Amino acid sequence: MPRFFISGGSSVAGGVAFIAGEDAAHARVLRLHIGDRVIVCDGNGQDHHCSVTRISPDMVEAEVLETRSCPAEPSVRVTVMAGLPKGDKAEYIIQKCTECGASEILFFPSHRCVMKLDRGAGEKKLSRWQRIAEEAAKQSGRGVIPRVGLLGGLDEAFNTAAATDLPLFLYETGERETLKEAVESAGAIRTAAIITGPEGGFEGFEAELAAMMKLRVCSMGPRIFRCETAPVAALSALMYATDNL
Amino acid sequence: MPRFFISGGSSVAGGVAFIAGEDAAHARVLRLHIGDRVIVCDGNGQDHHCSVTRISPDMVEAEVLETRSCPAEPSVRVTVMAGLPKGDKAEYIIQKCTECGASEILFFPSHRCVMKLDRGAGEKKLSRWQRIAEEAAKQSGRGVIPRVGLLGGLDEAFNTAAATDLPLFLYETGERETLKEAVESAGAIRTAAIITGPEGGFEGFEAELAAMMKLRVCSMGPRIFRCETAPVAALSALMYATDNL
Repeated sequence: MPRFFISGGSSVAGGVAFIAGEDAAHARVLRLHIGDRVIVCDGNGQDHHCSVTRISPDMVEAEVLETRSCPAEPSVRVTVMAGLPKGDKAEYIIQKCTECGASEILFFPSHRCVMKLDRGAGEKKLSRWQRIAEEAAKQSGRGVIPRVGLLGGLDEAFNTAAATDLPLFLYETGERETLKEAVESAGAIRTAAIITGPEGGFEGFEAELAAMMKLRVCSMGPRIFRCETAPVAALSALMYATDNL
Repeated sequence: MPRFFISGGSSVAGGVAFIAGEDAAHARVLRLHIGDRVIVCDGNGQDHHCSVTRISPDMVEAEVLETRSCPAEPSVRVTVMAGLPKGDKAEYIIQKCTECGASEILFFPSHRCVMKLDRGAGEKKLSRWQRIAEEAAKQSGRGVIPRVGLLGGLDEAFNTAAATDLPLFLYETGERETLKEAVESAGAIRTAAIITGPEGGFEGFEAELAAMMKLRVCSMGPRIFRCETAPVAALSALMYATDNL
């Protein structure tokens, strides 16, 4: 069923949903008719199931028939934090991690990051990235659009992760537990964080710092993942382990 | 460590590895020096650990120091079979599933497939796809290059899957078990198959046929995955479940 988010220019008031702004253009592409069913989601996990009542060039109105929780939101709130990658890899991470159920997707500069963003370029990227998250949330039936953000550095990622039930730091070498050992020893998991490196990986001192911050430094097995594949594979595994896949 | 496959133009004979053909070009890009360590893999799970002894413009020779099993091969042999997708999504599936440990990656035309390939176009695609699998196998440290292939139809995918310990058919609607239920009730898993649909998904009769063929028709949870994300997420989950992640 076509899905719109209130953040996308649509709104709901007095039992009527108004599909406007950029969403109106999307509605035109979908060639909606009077009586068609659509979902207008509040972006906070609540779905308004609606029936289209009026169509004009810049707005679609729809009657709210029923409001209920979006079934697609996972029971665990996962923050994915990835080293800022080059090219379109960040977009890939955002799209795939949204489908896999991430709640937040944040990028950080780290020691071996090749990519640098100045403030202006960062803001432009962020608005593009947030649109990609919204598109993927619509397409996959999510009730929440993951927040996309840029962190100042790895220390911010560590602090964000440390506040969760399962702060995972994925590292390629050295003494580490497996992802499964970390997940299975965590007890009830309501929140989790997945930290993965940029193209060049992490420096040894970054992994040491993660361990000092009580993050779970763990491996993803003997294969080397690309920086854009690692968060998707780890998130899929975590969703599977917590009965969300 | 730089990694070459015998299939890529390299060979090993009498304790000496010869890095030639396309691999020689790759070796030039890497700027190898005498004494550098490289791995020449037989593509069958055996790694020859070598030291470079001679460099010429079209060949690098290296002494085999030790031969041992590649540690990156998973304990379960997984055949991924996906509905033939449009654009570059097949390439994406090949690259990511190679990283995640697939043994074979096969595409099939099905009822709702938009993409059609004639024989000539198919052969050209296949040779390009096989190169992508080889590149991804090198980069991720695999000991086997997954075989990439085109099946004649969904029936071939069903037959291939039915011969494995865990034939998974991922379907979006209706009565299904979860992926986890299917995996956990399978007992020892030495071989598995993951079948996912094209952009338009599967028809109901295709899922019914899968059930009749004793495939495990199962869901991937309440979120809708893109056709290129589903195999990667399912394979990651299966590798996690079988202690290969």
